[in-house]
Amino acid sequence: MIHFHIETPNEEIRPRLQEKIDCLTKPKGSLGMLEKLAMQIGCIQQTLSPRLNHPCHIVFAGDHGIAAEKVSLSPQEVTCQMVANFWTGGAGINFLARQHRFDLKIVDAGVNFDFQPEDPIIHRKIRKSTRNYLYEAAMTREEMELAVERGAECVRNCFDEGCNVIGFGEMGITNTSSSALWMTYATGIPLEKCIGAGCDHTGNIVRHKFNVLQKSMGNYHGDGSPEEIMRYFGGYEMVMSVGAMLKAAELKMVILIDGFIMTNCLLMASKLHPEVLHYSIFGHQGDEAGHKLLLEHLGAKPLLQLGLRLGEGTGALCAYPIVDSAVRMLNEMNTFKEMQVTKYF
Amino acid sequence: MIHFHIETPNEEIRPRLQEKIDCLTKPKGSLGMLEKLAMQIGCIQQTLSPRLNHPCHIVFAGDHGIAAEKVSLSPQEVTCQMVANFWTGGAGINFLARQHRFDLKIVDAGVNFDFQPEDPIIHRKIRKSTRNYLYEAAMTREEMELAVERGAECVRNCFDEGCNVIGFGEMGITNTSSSALWMTYATGIPLEKCIGAGCDHTGNIVRHKFNVLQKSMGNYHGDGSPEEIMRYFGGYEMVMSVGAMLKAAELKMVILIDGFIMTNCLLMASKLHPEVLHYSIFGHQGDEAGHKLLLEHLGAKPLLQLGLRLGEGTGALCAYPIVDSAVRMLNEMNTFKEMQVTKYF
Repeated sequence: MIHFHIETPNEEIRPRLQEKIDCLTKPKGSLGMLEKLAMQIGCIQQTLSPRLNHPCHIVFAGDHGIAAEKVSLSPQEVTCQMVANFWTGGAGINFLARQHRFDLKIVDAGVNFDFQPEDPIIHRKIRKSTRNYLYEAAMTREEMELAVERGAECVRNCFDEGCNVIGFGEMGITNTSSSALWMTYATGIPLEKCIGAGCDHTGNIVRHKFNVLQKSMGNYHGDGSPEEIMRYFGGYEMVMSVGAMLKAAELKMVILIDGFIMTNCLLMASKLHPEVLHYSIFGHQGDEAGHKLLLEHLGAKPLLQLGLRLGEGTGALCAYPIVDSAVRMLNEMNTFKEMQVTKYF
Repeated sequence: MIHFHIETPNEEIRPRLQEKIDCLTKPKGSLGMLEKLAMQIGCIQQTLSPRLNHPCHIVFAGDHGIAAEKVSLSPQEVTCQMVANFWTGGAGINFLARQHRFDLKIVDAGVNFDFQPEDPIIHRKIRKSTRNYLYEAAMTREEMELAVERGAECVRNCFDEGCNVIGFGEMGITNTSSSALWMTYATGIPLEKCIGAGCDHTGNIVRHKFNVLQKSMGNYHGDGSPEEIMRYFGGYEMVMSVGAMLKAAELKMVILIDGFIMTNCLLMASKLHPEVLHYSIFGHQGDEAGHKLLLEHLGAKPLLQLGLRLGEGTGALCAYPIVDSAVRMLNEMNTFKEMQVTKYF
């Protein structure tokens, strides 16, 4: 049983935040989305002067049994190769983490490879790859609960280091398939609208992927509860992300949400605890077909649309400076009164 | 006569840039807009390893004679008050400049106020406010040429300090009116589609503004050439921006374009020297009604849409981290070969 204690931020501070924002030397509302973010973060932190401290970004990596059905053009070995690429510092997420001063943590949630204990990652492997959900549940209930717990533990460690703003990303060949399945079950949107080509933009793989996933759904005869859908079709890296997001919300952290896969993890987290959405900032809308529909379902308006489809949490980190700007606005701008500026429009 | 020597970047380097981008450890094209920016900046700098050095941001400030017709709800005195706000560091543009490490320069292009020589701004005043273009040309030919020259000189000074990426912004009550007039003459789009409420979102002022501008157009009987339109309806801060943009392109700098007013300055610059567009990156699409049409006219797809309508160049600076990311991608990512990662999709 997955349970976190997540509070809805107290809204009583809202009028005072609004008043502070409106007294800054700018036409009312003229900093658009920055003002909305300032309001959200002020509510989360219950202060007129919020701070973003020790930003962390966790990339959870895991492999998927369904890869045997060739639902992705990319071979499974890419997952472990990319984990090594992360730790050498040369992947996409690395330059973004350096640029925006994020403490980057790479977690082996379930990669199909035996890393060495001295490899510089966080070793939390549940199992070498999930099972193939075309034929059976991807993971056991115990594995799912362990994954949630370990995801939460990773976030707790960041919190203990002083972190109050956190991004999440993933690496896991074929995890857009799991995401599409989570999405169709959790939103009721038909599978064909939840499915895309993953990172592959040639389109060749989409029909085969659809057939395999449809067959998987046909073979599934469970109760359709969020927890069971998570378990049956999920990836360890995705379930850890769900646990991580829920823990981050419990700890009142600002959560940076990335692309299609991480948005599906948030979707699932919100099915368990809807309050998690108050803590979430949507970084980027990608090109993956279902992502737009999913964001609409969640009523979310992402900060960026840059055509990213890399994963790793790149969209979350690209959006971070805007979040940072919102907080700086609250803390660093003069007021009309201080500066004797006439209110203008 | 306004003349700059602006080269079209040599495109021969394009295939080698594309090859470098495609060898980085990510699915082809998966960094979307970052890849496009990397290509553009690589072409501008004619290198596979571009660098962004000593970023500068110049805010040109000036007043407008048309303010006498009350086309803005805000009083003219706000322009000089905001200049003082800039130099104390408490305006919107200041926190963004600090956040993104821009060297911020405030230029008095024609504010209707006698600043003291010791006030910490760049003193390049052409005149205390333009004339009222409802009745006469806003500026003389000599004033226009001087403004272009001084804008260019400001950029030259940044270049001499080591700057190769530069943003521009403005402060000038009623300058959305000048911008709408430039836009309608330079694009042929009818005035009513070029006009918006400026920073005022109540809508009350728009009809009056339209009537005054339409009357101004009726009273104008010139040849309609870009230089004359610039001169007749322009602001000193806007004409300086045009000169600044052209000089930046001549010096092969990356130019960050902000919202409605700065996009109109670029429009005018491109009427004189179309090559300037190769050096320009569009930061933000604001809510001002005409901005979307203008961007479409220029074939531009801005990086951000955050609902900003403050001016000062805030949209350009908010977009800068994305530009920086593009360059870091080229310089900091591993290749498939180096990392022995299987090419994936």
